[in-house]
Amino acid sequence: MTDISFAPRGSKAEIEEGERLSPKFDADGLVTAVTVDADDGTVLMVAHMDAQALALTIETGIAHYYSRSRRRLWKKGEESGHLQTLVELRVDCDQDAVVLRVRMPPLGPDVPGAACHTGHRSCFFRSVPLGTAPSPELRLSVNDAGRLFDPAKVYGVPKKTDTPRF
Amino acid sequence: MTDISFAPRGSKAEIEEGERLSPKFDADGLVTAVTVDADDGTVLMVAHMDAQALALTIETGIAHYYSRSRRRLWKKGEESGHLQTLVELRVDCDQDAVVLRVRMPPLGPDVPGAACHTGHRSCFFRSVPLGTAPSPELRLSVNDAGRLFDPAKVYGVPKKTDTPRF
Repeated sequence: MTDISFAPRGSKAEIEEGERLSPKFDADGLVTAVTVDADDGTVLMVAHMDAQALALTIETGIAHYYSRSRRRLWKKGEESGHLQTLVELRVDCDQDAVVLRVRMPPLGPDVPGAACHTGHRSCFFRSVPLGTAPSPELRLSVNDAGRLFDPAKVYGVPKKTDTPRF
Repeated sequence: MTDISFAPRGSKAEIEEGERLSPKFDADGLVTAVTVDADDGTVLMVAHMDAQALALTIETGIAHYYSRSRRRLWKKGEESGHLQTLVELRVDCDQDAVVLRVRMPPLGPDVPGAACHTGHRSCFFRSVPLGTAPSPELRLSVNDAGRLFDPAKVYGVPKKTDTPRF
């Protein structure tokens, strides 16, 4: 892939309601990517895409991101095998965010695919109690059935020198 | 609100899998907020929260954001009346993003609430065709039933000096 060619940014009306894809990359060259399960809508993860990752995702129908910690293109599942196949890609009004509706390979006969490096299906596996001001005493609760895979088996035991995977 | 008190950032394991809320605000002091319909999971919008917006959202159960264009706290619906009431707030593994599961007031007997300033239910009302490399000729398609409200009636006719609402 040599040329990455989106439409130029037009007027506010063209960007917000027109037919052209003219992404608004931020100062770091990124748009926000929200990935959801295509079947039940569960938000699986939030990540980022640079122009190359967005173009590859559109061209291949497989989710590609830009890893800010590793500072490189990140084909989701390149290490774990947990690829994400797009059913639909949506763009928001000001074109600085996209939604990926994806399917992931199930981990077993009755086990759905998992998107989080912790082994949970979704990165958003904890919920915040509402109704009182936040404090250090606030306690998150787990909103899923627990880990679906063992990260040590899928990714190997992390070395102390490893940068975070997110 | 004078004190905003989250837990200090602990070890990677504590942040990613522990019970404490210790958000990772970026260089601009923001986390990413993804807002979805609590009932059918539709992604309605992506916005940002500073510490004050996050704390107010937790305390009141009503969605508050930080408007980057207006550089101030933004109680969603303060102008349109289209408030978002939280059913659940989720936080991701590295705690730099949250998911708001919300309900919005319906716009009519058979008309759901709308989150986008364009009048559409969701900001993500356009889809990107997949399977070929992006180009300026690529055409987005509309994936919803159209506008649910007239922005000129809800917000008034924008002045030329108005900053974008996102």
